[in-house]
Amino acid sequence: MEQRVTRAATELGYEPHFIAQSLRKGNTGTLGFLVADMSNPVFADIVRGAEDFARTKGYAVMLANSEGNEGLDAEHLRLFLRRRVDGIIVSTVGSGSEEVGRELANPNIRYVVIDRDVPPDLKVSGIMGDHATGMREATMHLINRGHRSIALISGPESLRPVRERARGFREAFATAGLKPRKDLIRLGSLRPEYGRDETANLLSLAQPPTAIVAGGNRLLAGVLEAIHTLGLEVGRQLALVSCDDVDLTRLYRPAISVVVRDTYKMGQLAADYLIDQLINPQAPIQNALVPTRFVARASSDFQWPRTSRAEVSRA
Amino acid sequence: MEQRVTRAATELGYEPHFIAQSLRKGNTGTLGFLVADMSNPVFADIVRGAEDFARTKGYAVMLANSEGNEGLDAEHLRLFLRRRVDGIIVSTVGSGSEEVGRELANPNIRYVVIDRDVPPDLKVSGIMGDHATGMREATMHLINRGHRSIALISGPESLRPVRERARGFREAFATAGLKPRKDLIRLGSLRPEYGRDETANLLSLAQPPTAIVAGGNRLLAGVLEAIHTLGLEVGRQLALVSCDDVDLTRLYRPAISVVVRDTYKMGQLAADYLIDQLINPQAPIQNALVPTRFVARASSDFQWPRTSRAEVSRA
Repeated sequence: MEQRVTRAATELGYEPHFIAQSLRKGNTGTLGFLVADMSNPVFADIVRGAEDFARTKGYAVMLANSEGNEGLDAEHLRLFLRRRVDGIIVSTVGSGSEEVGRELANPNIRYVVIDRDVPPDLKVSGIMGDHATGMREATMHLINRGHRSIALISGPESLRPVRERARGFREAFATAGLKPRKDLIRLGSLRPEYGRDETANLLSLAQPPTAIVAGGNRLLAGVLEAIHTLGLEVGRQLALVSCDDVDLTRLYRPAISVVVRDTYKMGQLAADYLIDQLINPQAPIQNALVPTRFVARASSDFQWPRTSRAEVSRA
Repeated sequence: MEQRVTRAATELGYEPHFIAQSLRKGNTGTLGFLVADMSNPVFADIVRGAEDFARTKGYAVMLANSEGNEGLDAEHLRLFLRRRVDGIIVSTVGSGSEEVGRELANPNIRYVVIDRDVPPDLKVSGIMGDHATGMREATMHLINRGHRSIALISGPESLRPVRERARGFREAFATAGLKPRKDLIRLGSLRPEYGRDETANLLSLAQPPTAIVAGGNRLLAGVLEAIHTLGLEVGRQLALVSCDDVDLTRLYRPAISVVVRDTYKMGQLAADYLIDQLINPQAPIQNALVPTRFVARASSDFQWPRTSRAEVSRA
């Protein structure tokens, strides 16, 4: 049978060596990685972690970029299947459409999901960030610095990271015996434009927030844009916290406080779990909860309200 | 013949529809895109341009990321060939190793190269940035603002964008009847660490530069890090110019002057030229030169030396 396929394929101009090898080994040495949005610098780290690990095991990684367009998720999963990858690391744009759910139920291919809900009946491993813990610490920090009117801007709660961040945010208030102002919680989209528009709206309220939490690193660009347009100074007239440490948060002056996670590690684990199941189809489903923690910087690390004597550290 | 392959493949568990379709049409509707370094935010735009255009023509794009590791370039090109893409958009890490050259000479697949030298005997289309023009404008701007000790930090001159930037830099001095200080030109690597180390070194010279040009947007992060460590203030004690407009350059305070190019357009053109050749194998080789221009911002848009009266605009 193998010879028949190989011979026929050769006559049609296919690469006989590769086809013969795939048929024999039953694998192609290739993993797919569905990237929700390549514009998000966090993915560069996750992908690098996955690629570095996969390479040590003899696998190459191919990527498809949904660029924030939920409609492309299922299409790209099918593209990987047609290009015959052995397994797929999945970070979808959306919270998992029916179409994506059907693909993930395909028993002929292995998946590992990053930071998205997986229906419990699907036997799919997952790498989840513990976003609630870091966000609880961040919110507690703002409460301890004297803030009561704290805004949270993030995506829709159907997305696991957003839901977890909102949970941590609310839990910090509950722990302090306080209630967050509901009118300051804006959970609609992770896009920069949403961050910009909601920040402009929040800061024009009769009682504007004294601190803003950007629950998503792409959002942050829009939040800063709106703050600059209004001429407000971060770390002096307004406290600011973001999620995930990127060039912008590290190098902005004042440096921006962030909830961090080990994104490289998430990629490593995803490739590790996936290859484990490819080598040993009987391997159990694995789930990892990757920790997050809060790093306080000058954008929020000052007492509110400022007294006239309080001097700003611009470090 | 087609039936024989399809039947044999089906019995082995392949997707008959897809295989039959590929054999019939002789194409797979898939393009490969070799990305030099996904950590560089510029690639998100180039890829988006290519994907958006390809989609309108019924093609999907798969990516492979060399992550700044030149050794992976040729390996990823072979990966695409094995996964049977119809054509490949190529942005290599290096200036074109022999190994990559051999791949590009493969007559069985079409390539379009982005911003890398192509040996003239290869029939490969190219999308090139006109980096010299924007850099000449940027350098002239710094000279006109009173700077004479201007540093240029960038990658090796074997890379086309670097060579063109260095050419523009030197031409501006020649036009002004001046000579650049050779000890301030550092052309070694595009990595952030190189930007950091060279900036620290330059600013510790007995006669340090009064302006720095970061010839690469990943570099810029390192340049800023070194400037912060030394406690210098951009736009006041030092002028700064960078290449390519990213979140960091737009949102840093003071905003950072940049040489910009239409990166989305470069991706669009690359996909356009490639698909053109796939549809019509007799189509001629095409070359595009994509313009660059200089955008002056507060990081450099002030007279040097400052008089004590000169006030800084922090906008």
